[in-house]
Amino acid sequence: MNELEQIERIAVRSPSKIALVVIDGLGGLPHPDTGKTELETAKTPNLDFLARNGISGLIEPLGPGLTPGSGPAHLALFGYDPFRFTIGRGILEALGIDFPLQEGDVAARGNFCTVNDAGVIVDRRAGRISDDECARLCQLLGHIKVDNLQPLVRPVRGHRFLVVLRGHDLHPDVSDSDPNQIGVKPNQIVVLSPEAESTAALVREWVNKARNVLVNSYPANMVLLRGFSRHPHFVSMSEVYKLKPAAIATYPMYRGLAKLLGMDVLDIGKQSSIEEEFDVLAKHYADYDFFFLHIKQADAAGEDGNFQEKVRVIEEVDAALPRLTDLQPEVTVVTGDHSTPALLKAHSWHPVPFVLSSRWCRADDVTEFSERACARGSLGRLPALAVMPLALANALKLTKFGA
Amino acid sequence: MNELEQIERIAVRSPSKIALVVIDGLGGLPHPDTGKTELETAKTPNLDFLARNGISGLIEPLGPGLTPGSGPAHLALFGYDPFRFTIGRGILEALGIDFPLQEGDVAARGNFCTVNDAGVIVDRRAGRISDDECARLCQLLGHIKVDNLQPLVRPVRGHRFLVVLRGHDLHPDVSDSDPNQIGVKPNQIVVLSPEAESTAALVREWVNKARNVLVNSYPANMVLLRGFSRHPHFVSMSEVYKLKPAAIATYPMYRGLAKLLGMDVLDIGKQSSIEEEFDVLAKHYADYDFFFLHIKQADAAGEDGNFQEKVRVIEEVDAALPRLTDLQPEVTVVTGDHSTPALLKAHSWHPVPFVLSSRWCRADDVTEFSERACARGSLGRLPALAVMPLALANALKLTKFGA
Repeated sequence: MNELEQIERIAVRSPSKIALVVIDGLGGLPHPDTGKTELETAKTPNLDFLARNGISGLIEPLGPGLTPGSGPAHLALFGYDPFRFTIGRGILEALGIDFPLQEGDVAARGNFCTVNDAGVIVDRRAGRISDDECARLCQLLGHIKVDNLQPLVRPVRGHRFLVVLRGHDLHPDVSDSDPNQIGVKPNQIVVLSPEAESTAALVREWVNKARNVLVNSYPANMVLLRGFSRHPHFVSMSEVYKLKPAAIATYPMYRGLAKLLGMDVLDIGKQSSIEEEFDVLAKHYADYDFFFLHIKQADAAGEDGNFQEKVRVIEEVDAALPRLTDLQPEVTVVTGDHSTPALLKAHSWHPVPFVLSSRWCRADDVTEFSERACARGSLGRLPALAVMPLALANALKLTKFGA
Repeated sequence: MNELEQIERIAVRSPSKIALVVIDGLGGLPHPDTGKTELETAKTPNLDFLARNGISGLIEPLGPGLTPGSGPAHLALFGYDPFRFTIGRGILEALGIDFPLQEGDVAARGNFCTVNDAGVIVDRRAGRISDDECARLCQLLGHIKVDNLQPLVRPVRGHRFLVVLRGHDLHPDVSDSDPNQIGVKPNQIVVLSPEAESTAALVREWVNKARNVLVNSYPANMVLLRGFSRHPHFVSMSEVYKLKPAAIATYPMYRGLAKLLGMDVLDIGKQSSIEEEFDVLAKHYADYDFFFLHIKQADAAGEDGNFQEKVRVIEEVDAALPRLTDLQPEVTVVTGDHSTPALLKAHSWHPVPFVLSSRWCRADDVTEFSERACARGSLGRLPALAVMPLALANALKLTKFGA
């Protein structure tokens, strides 16, 4: 029996409320001039107050040394083992642009690329064409018919696009055409299980037609496909945890992921501020007992290598936090999905500061919210998969295991 | 290969001695007036001395957020994975009243309950009838014959009783009749595997006859059965660990559990004091190399919400401790099976203070035995399953793994 099924057996409905604030890419690395990380540099009186009254630790999204993508990192936070619950690249891409997937759809991630006269790939990203050019080419590709199917093609960003096959008896067990390197031809698409025979044939035909359509669109004169996948059916958070969960997130990917786990995704503008996210939470506070509030800006600043901007985002979260804590949820958790140190300009493997405050948490000696202080917290290093059981326990939503 | 089999391969017999003192429900929560837990409030010079000379940490019985029952919590302490080694409710109940189980017995936990004229359950506990009434009704039920079997019925406490089927070819894969809710009829008893066909028929017949016997015993006019189970055969601690283990415990459940793991259960009165438990240990010190000494009173005080009484019990253990340490066992461990904070009046998920003292332990900086101090100990958060390997290693009873 796995963790999730164990929890399902002991979870009980109750009126107590849990708020999980995820500052995307929260963890950082010390700035060489000051020796302080982004979080240690930020002035965070409200987060420090939580730490003083709560228990702290560092969470490991996947395990020591492993750098997670946003999908697996969030699945782990929600208690879904990311090595067991996998989401195909094509589906992630669809969630990312809020594409309305239907039952049976097979989605793949596409790249526009450049091939030479011999068909050999010379640039996997077609010189990173503009969003406009991407949209124009996707419209062209959208006219392609294979058999009696007309695969849907949507621009994502730059050279990235989404293809969705919609029809009967489609199957995603089809190999990638993207060889993930230059100097070779695209891979022939083959079946990975017998049920996908006809799907593979359709995709091969589509790729051939796409090549013809793009022949004069240099540098974007060919496509590469990968991550054929179907919408997975995960057990919902309400079924496992007996929660009524809501998500507040501005980025489509996180909204899609939340929906996949059965959360109600609350209405909010794409350009909403952090403060506005907290306002949406407050507005719906009576209607749910679990809130996932996602803050993307810290990760974006980290990816851009903008140390000061990440500090500023963290301070903005801190300033907005009383809008949540004033509501006095039984359990408040603040953490990140992974680290995105500005110095690395990328996601990293470093464990992520974590604080949980509740009446029953047995507070430790930590008095500030930072990487170093959390390392001394009573939770020590904690797998991200432990976050939901801990939050539920502190909300008195779990009964005893065994007599 | 699982943990236990790994240890079995490297364990060796030796004259060194291990004492494991389990203060049931040891972990607590801070009193709102003082900010100190039960253990932090208690004056414990002898436990603090152990902490100064030992290594400390917090143990997780089942994992973050999970609250264990006494059975699983103790199995974990003894190195038996409680998710793998399960003990049925019926058997636990039998152990709890020192019922002499025989090979092949199938035991179930029974509740007297109240049903209305339509057979619908209106009270799952029959108004919590007295122990005397329970005993009287069990005697009536004990006369019931089904086929040529006469199931044994024993009172436990209040509305609780034990039924044991003793005969040939019995099988415990039979469903519960207890629906775990009111407003419905008892569940029909069905087979969960084909071998249990005849057992299920016997149980159905017994329940029908029980209903007739109880028809005038309102409010206890019906029975609910659950947890049909057989005495499990666990590999013994002497086989796995090459130990000669002894148990000192006053409560039947813990004595039964110890016996199940192959410990010699030493003679002691049910009403014995903590001091007397240590005296029994001292008396038999030469005869064994592993001692499990169980102190129930701390958990009982916690369950009663009696903070001061739990403090007093801990101080009583501390005062008696020199009777053990004067014997200078090679390894002394003091911990609990789980937390029972007086403020929660129940078992909880909080990790449990742990200290191990031995000549070879590589003592850390911890100078007192408390939740907060143990959180800073060099063992950090430790799964309870690690306790036995650690104790054996410190007693130099484990050889090298691999060349």
